[in-house]
Amino acid sequence: MTLKLYALCGEDRSRPFSPHVWKTMLSLAHKGLSCEVEKVGFTEIPKLEGGFSRTVPLLRDGERLVRDSFDIALYLDEAYPGRPTLFGGDGGRAMARFVEGWSQTTLHPAVMRIALVDIHDMLGPEDQSYFRTSREDRLGQPLEAVVAARDDEIAAFAGKLEPLRTMLKSQPFIGGEGPLFADYIVFGALQWLRVTSAAKVLADDDPVALWFGRVLDLHDGLGRSVRAA
Amino acid sequence: MTLKLYALCGEDRSRPFSPHVWKTMLSLAHKGLSCEVEKVGFTEIPKLEGGFSRTVPLLRDGERLVRDSFDIALYLDEAYPGRPTLFGGDGGRAMARFVEGWSQTTLHPAVMRIALVDIHDMLGPEDQSYFRTSREDRLGQPLEAVVAARDDEIAAFAGKLEPLRTMLKSQPFIGGEGPLFADYIVFGALQWLRVTSAAKVLADDDPVALWFGRVLDLHDGLGRSVRAA
Repeated sequence: MTLKLYALCGEDRSRPFSPHVWKTMLSLAHKGLSCEVEKVGFTEIPKLEGGFSRTVPLLRDGERLVRDSFDIALYLDEAYPGRPTLFGGDGGRAMARFVEGWSQTTLHPAVMRIALVDIHDMLGPEDQSYFRTSREDRLGQPLEAVVAARDDEIAAFAGKLEPLRTMLKSQPFIGGEGPLFADYIVFGALQWLRVTSAAKVLADDDPVALWFGRVLDLHDGLGRSVRAA
Repeated sequence: MTLKLYALCGEDRSRPFSPHVWKTMLSLAHKGLSCEVEKVGFTEIPKLEGGFSRTVPLLRDGERLVRDSFDIALYLDEAYPGRPTLFGGDGGRAMARFVEGWSQTTLHPAVMRIALVDIHDMLGPEDQSYFRTSREDRLGQPLEAVVAARDDEIAAFAGKLEPLRTMLKSQPFIGGEGPLFADYIVFGALQWLRVTSAAKVLADDDPVALWFGRVLDLHDGLGRSVRAA
């Protein structure tokens, strides 16, 4: 097997932080697939694999290149059907798109309003310049303005997880009795925050914190292989 | 087949409005099961079937009684495995719990803050008295105070549906190419609002409004069999 994953890091290449790359790292571990991980900075991405993708994760599997964490999960389930499923059937594959929609519209903006300057500060000089320009263009304001209400965002963060907290009364994982890709989707958002920011957003006994701990423990503690910021 | 469903109505027994009963009406139609529907008021529920349930939906299938819309959907898929699935496999069954958690913590409180007094006004005198007392006990304030910021809630409602709107860029239903119980979960919340309140919460061309229209059209337009308030 010749799997290779390109993962985003800051100046310290031992601390991958992209939520989407974390989804893929856990997806690969879930399938029991070992993989070479090449750590890259933002400005290296467009030069990878002949300019195949402007974003990571980017996966090479032999001759095949696949980008986007959801597409990679779909690819892995199709290419390796004998290994544990990431979706648990057609319904799970469809509903994982809803979980993705929720995570990206509810959690991701909140993480940005907490950690955007922390992320910037982790980057090397060239990536810092790219990151500031591209994010300020996209968000229409300076990075420092995005995080101006950081303390309010930290206080409000736990409340945004109420749908997951309610679900956890029924089952230990979004996938049911065990994790599926939908768990890794939400994990990615919280791991992004954990690796980039020291903000404490959940009480230790919050059911969501306990779920996050369970996902950190999975696959020989892969999520814990990078310590919290 | 001797299926019987107890459904909640106000004084006009032709207008079932409970979000949970709507989930079950669509579930039964999805399975292609015909069913006698007995319309009841709030204060009749504890007397049904020997006091089996304090809430509806309550389904009798021959000798079997089942309560709770999610449990009824699970029961139907188990009891009628040869008919179209409501979950699409183990993953879909698990993730429908997440959709339920989202709907009940995000949409249901918002519908109450818009329509609580409208719902009260639909009820017969005895049910009105029960409804006011029980809801004011639970919510800790008069019904009229709950809806005090009704206009703000109406304006904010479309924003709460952003996770679904984002998902709809990938597929036409939460179930994927066709509807599953997860669609009926979210439909139930919007149908509750549609039947009880004249509040307009979505622009006609909102992707969520178009999805809602698709679910209203399903099963020979079952959802449209009760006109909007």
